[in-house]
Amino acid sequence: MEEIRIRTHRRGEMLDITDRVREIVSRLGMDEGVVVLQSLHTTAALTINENADPAVVHDLLGKLERLVPKDEAFYRHDEGNSDSHLKTSFFGPSLTVIVSGGQPVLGTWQGIWFCEFDGPRERRVAVQLLRA
Amino acid sequence: MEEIRIRTHRRGEMLDITDRVREIVSRLGMDEGVVVLQSLHTTAALTINENADPAVVHDLLGKLERLVPKDEAFYRHDEGNSDSHLKTSFFGPSLTVIVSGGQPVLGTWQGIWFCEFDGPRERRVAVQLLRA
Amino acid sequence: MEEIRIRTHRRGEMLDITDRVREIVSRLGMDEGVVVLQSLHTTAALTINENADPAVVHDLLGKLERLVPKDEAFYRHDEGNSDSHLKTSFFGPSLTVIVSGGQPVLGTWQGIWFCEFDGPRERRVAVQLLRA
Repeated sequence: MEEIRIRTHRRGEMLDITDRVREIVSRLGMDEGVVVLQSLHTTAALTINENADPAVVHDLLGKLERLVPKDEAFYRHDEGNSDSHLKTSFFGPSLTVIVSGGQPVLGTWQGIWFCEFDGPRERRVAVQLLRA
Repeated sequence: MEEIRIRTHRRGEMLDITDRVREIVSRLGMDEGVVVLQSLHTTAALTINENADPAVVHDLLGKLERLVPKDEAFYRHDEGNSDSHLKTSFFGPSLTVIVSGGQPVLGTWQGIWFCEFDGPRERRVAVQLLRA
Repeated sequence: MEEIRIRTHRRGEMLDITDRVREIVSRLGMDEGVVVLQSLHTTAALTINENADPAVVHDLLGKLERLVPKDEAFYRHDEGNSDSHLKTSFFGPSLTVIVSGGQPVLGTWQGIWFCEFDGPRERRVAVQLLRA
């Protein structure tokens, strides 16, 4: 198992970790298979989405915030981050990316994103490679 | 393939199945790899989220209920559980958890949850282990 | 790695690809393992949900549309599909389905769905098989 360490700087933030995943796949030398990524936190997720226009990330985080605002009168969890927990299950705590020809398989506009929903914090992503 | 059987008791409910997953990984004896879990139902999902403060589950289910209420005037499906189907695709029907050192890899506050969205029912989760 | 090609016909649409996944698993001849599917697009996702009553898909897409409408005043991305990007991360860009006895393991009402959120388009799904 490998690990990616990430420093986030805002409460809500998406960080492109595509190159770090590529580096691990390349260093461990797998030709065909998948790479499994798992956030080791309950308020941070992983997803694949567009990495060309930064406006997409702005819009994703903005709409998420409006759908799941930080505070709700009925929340009981006293850390004030119930919204972060829900966003994490919506985007997903783990992500499987196909590897072929020695590279993560990504469409033209796809990048792999670490999604911070309760930063800033030091974060860890576990990485496991499975050969086909 | 292994199977976990679950009895749920409410319409919306999250059940911590971490120990049952640990038991399977330990019994089948895999050191490095992943464990894949799949809900065999269209109104029940799987996720990783906090298992320390029960208020988190209260808040997750409460907010989900407000975002996706049981009834909507435009719903056509006559079983009255269209909301349960949507919640299932939001949280996800299958979940991949990394295994390392013979144990599921989980952060300090992470547990594996079976998410019932249309109970009470008898439920089944398929489990497949893949070696790294 | 295999690939499934899909032609979509509406902006929002769910297409049942269960038989195409079955065909690949059967042709490649895997007994126990998982099949990993990955949408190669940032505005199309994959999920498992009911394939018996078409009203379920109607309700899923209708509720998604109301939760995440196409236009919002604060959106900056100028392609007019920020909603499609968010729906994709909600449903998930990749999907892992367990295979046992030479077949994808699916509950009675479960089918595998390609979810188009910004069609009509030509789409591709990458497919990787991993043996248990």
